[in-house]
Parts: sequence; C-alpha cells; structure tokens
Amino acid sequence: MSRLGVCFVGAGGAVASTVIAGVALMKRGLSPRIGMVTETGGLPQTLGCAPLDGLVFGGWDIRDANIFEAALRERIVPEHLLRKVEPELRAIKPWPGVVSPKFLGTADADNVVTAKGHREELELLTRNVKEFKAANKLDRLIIVNLGSTERHAEVADVHRTVAAFEAGLTRNDERISPAMKYLYLACKLGAGHVNFTPSLTKVPALEALAETSGIPIAGEDGKTGQTMLKTALAPALAVRQLKVEGWFSTNILGNNDGRVLDDPESNKTKVASKLSVLDEILGYEVSDHQVHINYYRPRGDEKEAWDNIDVLGFLGERMQIKINFLCKDSILAAPLVLDLVRLMDVAQRCGERGIQRQFSLFFKAPYHQDDERAVNDLFKQNALLHEWVEKVARSSVRAAV
Amino acid sequence: MSRLGVCFVGAGGAVASTVIAGVALMKRGLSPRIGMVTETGGLPQTLGCAPLDGLVFGGWDIRDANIFEAALRERIVPEHLLRKVEPELRAIKPWPGVVSPKFLGTADADNVVTAKGHREELELLTRNVKEFKAANKLDRLIIVNLGSTERHAEVADVHRTVAAFEAGLTRNDERISPAMKYLYLACKLGAGHVNFTPSLTKVPALEALAETSGIPIAGEDGKTGQTMLKTALAPALAVRQLKVEGWFSTNILGNNDGRVLDDPESNKTKVASKLSVLDEILGYEVSDHQVHINYYRPRGDEKEAWDNIDVLGFLGERMQIKINFLCKDSILAAPLVLDLVRLMDVAQRCGERGIQRQFSLFFKAPYHQDDERAVNDLFKQNALLHEWVEKVARSSVRAAV
Amino acid sequence: MSRLGVCFVGAGGAVASTVIAGVALMKRGLSPRIGMVTETGGLPQTLGCAPLDGLVFGGWDIRDANIFEAALRERIVPEHLLRKVEPELRAIKPWPGVVSPKFLGTADADNVVTAKGHREELELLTRNVKEFKAANKLDRLIIVNLGSTERHAEVADVHRTVAAFEAGLTRNDERISPAMKYLYLACKLGAGHVNFTPSLTKVPALEALAETSGIPIAGEDGKTGQTMLKTALAPALAVRQLKVEGWFSTNILGNNDGRVLDDPESNKTKVASKLSVLDEILGYEVSDHQVHINYYRPRGDEKEAWDNIDVLGFLGERMQIKINFLCKDSILAAPLVLDLVRLMDVAQRCGERGIQRQFSLFFKAPYHQDDERAVNDLFKQNALLHEWVEKVARSSVRAAV
Amino acid sequence: MSRLGVCFVGAGGAVASTVIAGVALMKRGLSPRIGMVTETGGLPQTLGCAPLDGLVFGGWDIRDANIFEAALRERIVPEHLLRKVEPELRAIKPWPGVVSPKFLGTADADNVVTAKGHREELELLTRNVKEFKAANKLDRLIIVNLGSTERHAEVADVHRTVAAFEAGLTRNDERISPAMKYLYLACKLGAGHVNFTPSLTKVPALEALAETSGIPIAGEDGKTGQTMLKTALAPALAVRQLKVEGWFSTNILGNNDGRVLDDPESNKTKVASKLSVLDEILGYEVSDHQVHINYYRPRGDEKEAWDNIDVLGFLGERMQIKINFLCKDSILAAPLVLDLVRLMDVAQRCGERGIQRQFSLFFKAPYHQDDERAVNDLFKQNALLHEWVEKVARSSVRAAV
Repeated sequence: MSRLGVCFVGAGGAVASTVIAGVALMKRGLSPRIGMVTETGGLPQTLGCAPLDGLVFGGWDIRDANIFEAALRERIVPEHLLRKVEPELRAIKPWPGVVSPKFLGTADADNVVTAKGHREELELLTRNVKEFKAANKLDRLIIVNLGSTERHAEVADVHRTVAAFEAGLTRNDERISPAMKYLYLACKLGAGHVNFTPSLTKVPALEALAETSGIPIAGEDGKTGQTMLKTALAPALAVRQLKVEGWFSTNILGNNDGRVLDDPESNKTKVASKLSVLDEILGYEVSDHQVHINYYRPRGDEKEAWDNIDVLGFLGERMQIKINFLCKDSILAAPLVLDLVRLMDVAQRCGERGIQRQFSLFFKAPYHQDDERAVNDLFKQNALLHEWVEKVARSSVRAAV
Repeated sequence: MSRLGVCFVGAGGAVASTVIAGVALMKRGLSPRIGMVTETGGLPQTLGCAPLDGLVFGGWDIRDANIFEAALRERIVPEHLLRKVEPELRAIKPWPGVVSPKFLGTADADNVVTAKGHREELELLTRNVKEFKAANKLDRLIIVNLGSTERHAEVADVHRTVAAFEAGLTRNDERISPAMKYLYLACKLGAGHVNFTPSLTKVPALEALAETSGIPIAGEDGKTGQTMLKTALAPALAVRQLKVEGWFSTNILGNNDGRVLDDPESNKTKVASKLSVLDEILGYEVSDHQVHINYYRPRGDEKEAWDNIDVLGFLGERMQIKINFLCKDSILAAPLVLDLVRLMDVAQRCGERGIQRQFSLFFKAPYHQDDERAVNDLFKQNALLHEWVEKVARSSVRAAV
Repeated sequence: MSRLGVCFVGAGGAVASTVIAGVALMKRGLSPRIGMVTETGGLPQTLGCAPLDGLVFGGWDIRDANIFEAALRERIVPEHLLRKVEPELRAIKPWPGVVSPKFLGTADADNVVTAKGHREELELLTRNVKEFKAANKLDRLIIVNLGSTERHAEVADVHRTVAAFEAGLTRNDERISPAMKYLYLACKLGAGHVNFTPSLTKVPALEALAETSGIPIAGEDGKTGQTMLKTALAPALAVRQLKVEGWFSTNILGNNDGRVLDDPESNKTKVASKLSVLDEILGYEVSDHQVHINYYRPRGDEKEAWDNIDVLGFLGERMQIKINFLCKDSILAAPLVLDLVRLMDVAQRCGERGIQRQFSLFFKAPYHQDDERAVNDLFKQNALLHEWVEKVARSSVRAAV
Repeated sequence: MSRLGVCFVGAGGAVASTVIAGVALMKRGLSPRIGMVTETGGLPQTLGCAPLDGLVFGGWDIRDANIFEAALRERIVPEHLLRKVEPELRAIKPWPGVVSPKFLGTADADNVVTAKGHREELELLTRNVKEFKAANKLDRLIIVNLGSTERHAEVADVHRTVAAFEAGLTRNDERISPAMKYLYLACKLGAGHVNFTPSLTKVPALEALAETSGIPIAGEDGKTGQTMLKTALAPALAVRQLKVEGWFSTNILGNNDGRVLDDPESNKTKVASKLSVLDEILGYEVSDHQVHINYYRPRGDEKEAWDNIDVLGFLGERMQIKINFLCKDSILAAPLVLDLVRLMDVAQRCGERGIQRQFSLFFKAPYHQDDERAVNDLFKQNALLHEWVEKVARSSVRAAV
C-alpha cells in the first residue's frame, strides 16, 4: 500500500486533533465511519481514494502539546475513546510553527520557529517535511491549513507576481503572512494545498506559482454549519420564488476559533467569507444580510447558530423562518478535511493543477478562476463534484494508488 | 386572447379565495407578483403560459358565501385590499357542493347539491361547468380540488376498474368519495385535474379513465411549508453524509384546514402524506420520524411549524437542528395553485395525458407511474420540471394560446 | 448520626437510580452539590436537614436489576462516574414490586411480587420495609413513589372511606391501584409518603388514613421542566397584564417515562396534571391551552420541551413567545426528590400530619385541603415554603436529628 | 375633572406616538384597554389614578411632524385605526427639541430649538410648558423622557453639585446633555420626571435638586421585552438552584431606536443597562453574560429577542433554555409609560419627592438610593409596588383627583 502524508498547519488545534484521533479510532473500528463522502457509496472505489490505513499525519503548531494532549484539552472526542489510541496520538508532536504578530495574536504560542527571516523559516519548514517524508516512507503529500483565522489583509503589490513575492520573502516583507508561506512551501515541495481557513492565502503570485509548480490548490474556509444550511435553504427559497428581505445569522462558540474571532480584524475576515454566498444563489441583493460571530465560553466546541430569515410571499405577505443548529464545530469540519485530503490526492495523481473548483462543496468562499462564477448552492456544488468524479472515472489518466 | 376557466372544488375556502382575490389584485397592479414560477424568468414566455387576464374563476363550495365574503372571513388578504376588488369577488358565487358524511363532517354545510344519487349529482355538476363555460366563452378548463381533507380511505374493488367504478356510481356505492366524483367529472368533461389535497382520488379506475379520456392529472397534496423545507434540508444532510436518527415535526394551525384535521381520520390521511418523503430522499429508514398536526385556534391561517432533527456526525457524535417556520398557509399555497393551473393548461395543450410527474415540485406525495420512483427531493423535482420545460420548448406540438 | 431510610417505588427507574448514584457521588465529593434547596443557604441548618451520609436507600422495582445496572442502562450519570461508586450501587437490589395490568403494562416486569391478593402483597411489602429498617438500624422512614404513570382512574366508592378501602383490599377490588397500596403501606408503617407521579393516589380514604395515622403526605407529580418554567413565566405575563390567548406546549422524550406515556390512558393522567396550572395563575381561562407529550426515542432521557405562547398586548396587538428547554428529565427530578425526602423528614419530626401544602413548590398538581386553593405560581409556592421554614425555626417542637 | 399634562421628550417617536394614539383610541372604545396595571383590578380606584379623559399630551421632538404623521410613519398602530382619531392626533405638534451632536446624531433633525446656549434653551422649553399648561388649563404635570438613547457618558465634576451644574449651564458646558436639561427643567417647573431611556440623566446634582424641588423622579430605561422576561426567569432558576453558566441575549430591531443603537456609543449605554440585572438576582457573577443589539431593518418596530441560557443542574449536568420573543417594541413600552404617568402623578399628589424606588417594576436599571439595593427580580419589584399602593391606601395624605 502506498502512503499519503498529511501535514496540518495547526496540527494541535481542535479540527486537526479530531481528524487524527478520528482516523486512529475508525481504523480500529472503535468509531463509526460517518460524515464523509469518500467512505460510502461507490465514490471511494471509483476514484481509488487512499484508505485510512494509508494516511500518515504530521504538521506544525505554535502550541507545544502532542496530539493526545491537544485532543484531551479540546474535549471533542470523549476521553474514554482517546485513551484507546493514546500511544499513537502521543507519538505525533507538532513541529514549531511560524507566527506573525501582524496577523495573529501569539499569547499562547510556545512552540515557535526561531529564524532570522522568511527565507530561513521556509528552510526549516522544508526540512520538517523532508524528514517526515523520509521517516515515514511517504509517496505523496498534502498540506492542509487548519490554523487560526488571520487578521483581515488586502492584496498588495508584493502579492501580485511570483517575482514580487519572492523579493518580498528575501527582504522579509511583513505583508507576507504565515498562511501564505505554507502555500509557498507546498508549491516548492510539489504538495497539494488546501486552505480550510478564511485567511488570505491564494494571492495572485501564489495562484500563478501553484499552476506552474503543477500542484492542485483548493479553498477557502470550510463550509460546516450555518453556511452549509444557508446554501441549502436559499436555493429552496429561490425555487419557491420567495423573496428574501433579510437574513440575520448569529453564532456562539467557545473554542479557540471563537477566541481568535473575538479579535475584530480576524472576525472581519471570517464574516466577509460568510456573507458572500447569499446574493449569488438568490440572484439579487438581499437588503439586510448580517452575520455575527460571538465568543461565548460556556459551550466550548459545541457551537450554536441561530438564523432568522424574513421572506415575502404571495401578494407581498411576510413570513419568517428560524433555524437553530446545535452543532459541534470540529465534528462537522473533520470529515470534510478527510474528504479533501483524499480528493486532492486523487486530483494530484490525475495531474490536476491550480484551482480545483470541483471541490467547491467543501468551502464557504470556493476558489474559482477569474472567468468563472463562484458556485455556492450546495446542490450545484455537489453536481460539480460528481461531474468531476465521472470525468475521472472515464479517464485513463488516473494513477493506481 | 383565449380564456382559461378554472373550477375549484372548495372555491370559498381559504386557498381558493386567496387565489381569486390575489389574481384580481395582481391584475390591477395592487399587489406584487411574488411566489410563482410562471410569472418570472423566461419560463412563462417559453411555455406560453396563460396571462392572469385570461383566467376566469368558478367552482363549488358547501358553504354559502360569495368570494368576497369568504375572503373576508378567512382574514388572509388584508381587508383594505379586498375592498378594492370587492365587486369582482362578490360576483363569484360558488355552486352547491357534493358532500358525504362518510368522508367529511358537514356541520357547516349550507350550500349542498340536492340529488337522488351519484349519477344525478354528476349531472348537476356537469351542468354547472357547461353553463360556466358558455357564459364566459371559455376555451379550456382546469378543475382543481382544494376541498377539505377527507377521512382516510382504502382502495377497494369498486375503485379498481372503470367498469366497477361506473357500476358503483349507478348503485350509489358509498365508497365513492366526493373527491373521486370531481375527478370523474374532469375526465368526462375533458378538463385537466389537479388534486391539491391528500384525499384519496387517483384510484386505479380513475387513473385509467384519465389516460383514455386524454386529460392530464397531477397531485397530490400541495407542498407548502414544513414539508417543502424538509425536502430541501434532507438532501443537504444526505450530501454531507449526516445520519438522520430522528425527525420530529409538529404543526399548529387554526384555520378551517386545522379544524378538519382535528378529526383523527382526516388527520391520518394528511400525516401519511407528510411522512412519506423522508426515507426516499435519504435512502434509508429514519428510525423515528413523526409528524403531528394540531388545531390551535389563536393563529388562524398563520400556521407554524416546529421541527427538531437529530443527526449523527463524525465518530457518531450527536447534533440537533431545529426549524421554526412562521408561515401563512394559504399565502404559501395560492401561488402553487396558480402555477399548476397554468402548467396543466400548457400540458393539456401539448397533448399530455394521465399522470404529470414533472409537476412533482408542487406536491407532498407526487403522482408517479407504478414503474417510476416518487421524487421528493425539492431540487430533483425542480430539475424534472425544467427538463419538461425544455422538452416543450423544443416541441412543435405546443399550441399557441 | 441518626439514619433516615428512603424507600422508592420504582427504585430501579431513571429518577431513583440517579438519586441514589448522585448521593453516592456527592458524599465522596465526586460531583458538585447543585440543584437542591436543602444543600445551600441557611435552610439546611435552620431545619436540621438529614445529611447525605445519614440517608439509606432501598425500594421496589418490577425490573430485576441492581442500582448499578439500572443506572448504567439509563445513561444519565456518566459511566466513568458510576464506576467509582459501583460496589455501593451494586449492593442495592430492589425488592419485587406490585403490578396491576389494569393500571400499567407489564411487558418488561420480571421482578414481581407473587401473592394471592392485595392483603398478602401488603404483608410482603411490610416485611421488606421491616427487614430494611432492622438491617440498616434506621431511625425514620420516607416512602417516595417514583413509579411509572398509571392509567387514568376515577375516584369510586371503594376509595371514599377507610372502611370501604379496607373492604376493597380484602375482596381484591381491582380499582385499588399499586400506587394506592404503597400509600396505604406508608400509613400503616408510620412513614411519610411522597407521590412524585401523577397517578391517582391520595383518594379520600387514604387522605383520611394519613391524618389519623399521623403521617405527612405530599404530592403530586414532580414539577421539573416545562411546567416549572410555565409557572414562572405565567406570573410575569400577569404582572405585565399581557393577555394569554393560547399556550401550546409540546414535549419529546425517549426514556421509559416517555414509553409509558405513549399509552393514551397514562398520557391522559399526565396531561391533566400539566394542564391544571395556567388558569389558576392568570385568573382567567386561557382559550386554547394544549399540552402534548410524545415518545421520541433518539434523545433518551434528554427531554425537550417547546412552548409557543400567543399574547395580546396594548391595543390588542399580538405577540409571541417561544421557549425551547433542552433538559434532562431525571437530572431535574432527582434534586427535588432529595429535597422532598429531607423536608418531609423534618415535617414528620415536627409532628406534621396529612397534606403538606407548603411543599407545593415541588409539584405540578400540589395537594391542598378542600378549603384551600391550589398554589401554582412558582414564587408564591416558594414563599409558602419559606413561611413554613420560619415557623419551624421558631418552633421548639423541632426534634434534633 | 382635573387635568394632568404629559410632556414627552421625543413626542413624535414610536413610543410617544403610540401612547398618544392609544389613549385617543381607548377613550373612544376603539381599542381594548390591555397591558396596564392602572386600568384593571382595584389599583386604579385605590390610588385615584387619573382617568384617560383627564390626560393631555404635548412635548418636544427634533423631527418636524405632527402626531398623526409620526404614528403613520412608525407603522405600529394600524392605519385604519389611526384614521379614526386623525384630527385629535394632527392637532398635536411637537415643539422644537434640544440637540447636542456630542450625545446624539442629528442627521434627521429638522425641528430644533435655536438658541445661544443652555440658558436660552431652557427659557424656550419653559415657555413651551407654561403655554401648554395655560392653554389646556392643566392642574398637574409630568415630563417623560422617551428620546433616543444618548451616547455613553461619565459623571464629571460639573454633574456633582447643583452649584457646579448651574455654573456649567451658564458657561455652556458641553457635558450637560439634552436629557439632563429636561430633568433640570422638570425640577424648576415642579413637574414629576420619568427617564424611560438609558441616557445618563440622574446625576448627583440633579438628584439633589429633585429632592429640594420636591419632585418625584423615576427611571431608568423601560423594562419591556427581553429584560422583562430575563428578570422573571432568573428568579425561577434561583428558586430551583440551577446554576447559570452563561446567558447570551441577542436582539434585532429595525425602528429608529435600533438605528440609533447602531452607533457603538449609544449601544454601549443601552447594553450596560441590560447587563446589570442578572448577577443581582442570582446572587453570583454569571461567568459569561452577553447582550447584543442589532439594527436589522426588515422588521421595523417588530423587535425580536433570542436568548440562550446555559445552566448546570444536579451533578453538574448541563442543560439549555432558549427563548424567542417576537414582540413589538412600542406596544410593550406604551402601557408602561401610561402606568408611570399615572403612578407618578399619585406620588406627586402624595408629596413623594426624589427617587421613587417603588416603581422599579418598570425599569431595567431602577433608581435607588445609595444605601439601598437595586431590585431587579420582577416579582420583588411587583411586591415593592404593591406595598406602596397599600401604604398610599392607608394614608390620609392622598389628594383627591
């Protein structure tokens, strides 16, 4: 069996530790295999998806804890289950991560790369991956960004061309964020890259570099709870020609993600991502669409979304829909990460490069070419995925795993 | 302009009076044209849908009130609007309706056909329609059943063949319900027939008769509020591979519909219709799917649905979704009725006969041939409709209006 | 330290096993002491409430399982906590219980008293208690009915006088329910009796017998979730002079309680108890007050209540309040049971006999004398309790524990 | 019949126009008298409350519209009702109001006092009231602040003594807000003053001046929807010893109040007022209590509150309560204003001066003396009111109306 390496940015966070612990449990039959499209139906066979046994996990984190300690701290996977895979999880210890106070608070960072600048940092990250690959005899590699949401940033000159970006690296331009560096690293290492966060990553320079480096990239911002339901319900309202006058979305969550989003600039990055979907689906501008995210400690990872939708029906009469989603943030995210890891691996084996729009299904703000439309309707996204699956199935290009 | 006659069973009820008042208002520009697929986008032109001005309304009701009085009583369309179209609505007075105590309570019936039996009743109904057609110079006709939900009934021998059914008519078999008689009437008059109620109507005898009579039929039970949302949300849960463990749906409504559903046998008919959709969409049997309908007077037509859904996600972790839909029963139903009237008219002009599965989008328990599957997924239903629209668009068969 | 024996009817059920496990855990400091009025503030000292260490548990159950097995089956107290008090819980094995198919289904009854009739049953129950008292050197005794809700019953002649009741016992009158027999037993043994269920128990014969036997009795039907909130919210609406037009309450629960209430006659008993509170608090009859209880398996003991309240405000304008209580049935009930055990013990030591109306705070349908009003307002109930506490505090009658 | 003058600050706003229109309608029997404690039960007779016919309305507003126009614009009282009292409402035209850009935006202010400074403004306001009193032959007067919420302000030296305050008036100190000037005016005119807003008003200087001027004052911030329910539910959780871990409150509203609260500094004033109640009632600090107010246009005055409460019960087990209040902001406020007008009038007639703590029932942040505790529990507030009513009833001081 060939082996697929998976390097997480934020390997000791809630989502990554849930993914790693979950795979350890599912491999042993200690937890059911629920929530992934790459585990059920004919899709895994059709595509030749990597089996759970073929996945090897590593990654970086700015907090100094092994995956067992991290998973215990996050209180997502029950302790009695974690205990059953303790040695496997203890053995995974994240490498020191890259930080930038401009992009993210570092209050609890105690496992940080020490280097003189961007270039030296990248050398260290490269060494991490090469040693990981050698030690585990890995055949292929995917890098997935699961780090905290960085502060809002704008595309600047340094982000526009590969040359400008590389010059920026050399002169330690502070507008190059950690998230961008991990994507640059993926390009250089020939590894597929997934941005599961809303942090600004796919700037023009790196989009071009991904193309020329021949790596597939997908993002951004995993579509888990509220937005997932929104992109299923909005198409229904469109089908019924009910006019959306206002959509008020509020979220409460108490995990580290929520803590980071308590920073107004990080919050801005996230909210922008959540706001973008509605008008595109409905075909008109909703006069009042609001998304609020609030850090509310009592619930930890057990995130809650409350939505109120005001609609106009026949004769302009008003009606209201309210949705209350009592979900678990990382439990919703983890299976999407696993699906993306496997699908990106298939894409990479098939020679796909650059933006992988067919994986829009997994994202709040899906990457797309400038001349293509974003697709946000959950069912149209699902159709995009299945068209691609059929194309792959027909293709002789598909490499054996 | 050609003229399309629309005969409602239950013409003085909440939905029918809202349709008739709504058309009167929209024609005059007094209310916006919201909520119909046959009013917006390219569909109306593509199909040559009948314009609002070409519709002429009539019908039967067991309550003695003209449409203005009926609409006022139902408190759905605001009084100040109704006053603006008062003469047009007062001029429409429902013909006496057919009753059967076996199928429906008749406590408030004061406008009832007096006849010796089924055959004589049918003669009177036929005369109503013929006079209506002549008086209004109608070119075509659609009959829409908007009557109250009849008590639960089972298909018996009398319902199995045309011969048996007609013998039953002759001997006044009490298992032939009012709803069935109106469909029989439609067959005999060559009028398209829509069953917007869950009452047992399309029995084998009448399905066969519709085929041989060359009339299109569509049903059953309009998909308005809770079930509409359910058939949009369930596909999303399927896409995300979230396992539905239980789905508890409760409804409170205080209109006449609600009053009728307070009868356990009528309630049974309705609930059966609402229960059928879920397992087909999800592809497995939901272990606990419940639908409750409660007659709760304070809200009148302003129906409210509350749903709780228990789902299992990654690693078998449990999450909950709750939906609260504050809707208006007839405001949701009326535009569907208008869409159906126009689409059935197109179908009839195109020579379609028998079951019109492409209109599944409008029904909780859509008619389908025995060798076809019911389609309940709102988006698959929408695709069915649009495939048919394209077929009609390509067809030279389409008659000019 | 003196020792108080507590005998539960339904000792192996969800509530009783939670009480017993909870006391074992709290005694050892393994769980916090939350939710009881007899654990915090000055009340315990003022009254001389029995300490947790002084409580000894026993009781009857028609299912054959020790308390550890029962608690494990009910999945209320987490398994890792139960394991810490396993031996103490395993040691408590319920005595065979009394059944009557007329009052309750016995599908899962495998631990049933075998006796020729009422009299012989009572002898066996008496022996259980006497042996329990001797073995544990108990000073005092309280019997608490936590059994499943019995089917609806009416007071008949056999229930009206002590003589008639005892004649009924002798001739095995089937209108004497198990719940009544346990109260008769309490009278005969001089033990205080609490009816935490809505089963018909305090019939005139037994109310009189409690008086003459000198035992305090309190009931009925523990006020835990939805009704507790209702009796706090309704007084607020009264204070604000908001007129309640309708109150629709629905419950979903999946534990054994819910299963029993799936029986329409048991459901009737329960709903009657839940319906009684509103009009008394508001001072007028609410035109549409409904309570529905539905057995919905996915959630087990994690009961959920959804309430919709329609209110009229200034100028007759309509508003709505909706409450969704995601509670845990036995977690809400258990501390009330513990409070009642201790307070009834104080009452008994103070020489109180017959109906203890001051404990109304704990019940949906509180016992009261014929010439007194039921008090349902949560805050008036609380005032009743505290008046009594002050009376006891002033009294020299109070016996030392 | 004696006549009571009522001067509103913000006379053309949503609440004031609803009060004035409501009284006009109720006097004529066109609307029911719901929602006031001074209209039902024995209280009005006991206290000798002013009848509706004895109330005469006037006041200031910074927008130039008469009360009919204002009420029409606010869409609270239905148009067909307003038309029935149109002349009476048209006749009331607010006097120009005082503005201060430091305390409130003035984008839509087109009816503003033109004066050289504080002193000249006060002269003009005084003249308004004197002319109003003479023209309407008024016996007594109450001033009620219903203006928009001013930006957050801190007590400074200028607010600490009467002398400092009056010196500040003379030198046009900009820290003297419009709200403070209206209270100063009330003191000077001997009129009772109610602060129904959260704006900083009762500074030490003015509290002292009210005492010495012999006028009663009450405030602040009317307790209408979410906070009213919160102060009814929190006591229930305290009675049941359920530990509140977190309470998350969010509000959406689209009226002018909401628009003003879109300003972060006004929002801060309001939220502070809403946050203060919980810890006092519960007796401990809730670890995470949040209140959010969002301006959401689609709903206008039909405010909606959504609350989530996390509670710990027996053994530390977690439960959740969610409350969704679909209310109408001004419909809840207006009857409280009417109650306050009448009760303050009684207080004034009885010779009460300074802070009227017995009216805490009507406020989110009730005024109280420094050596008294704030009382927030709705039921304790109600008891305070009724104790005072009894005191007044027993008193010979009470003047006849």
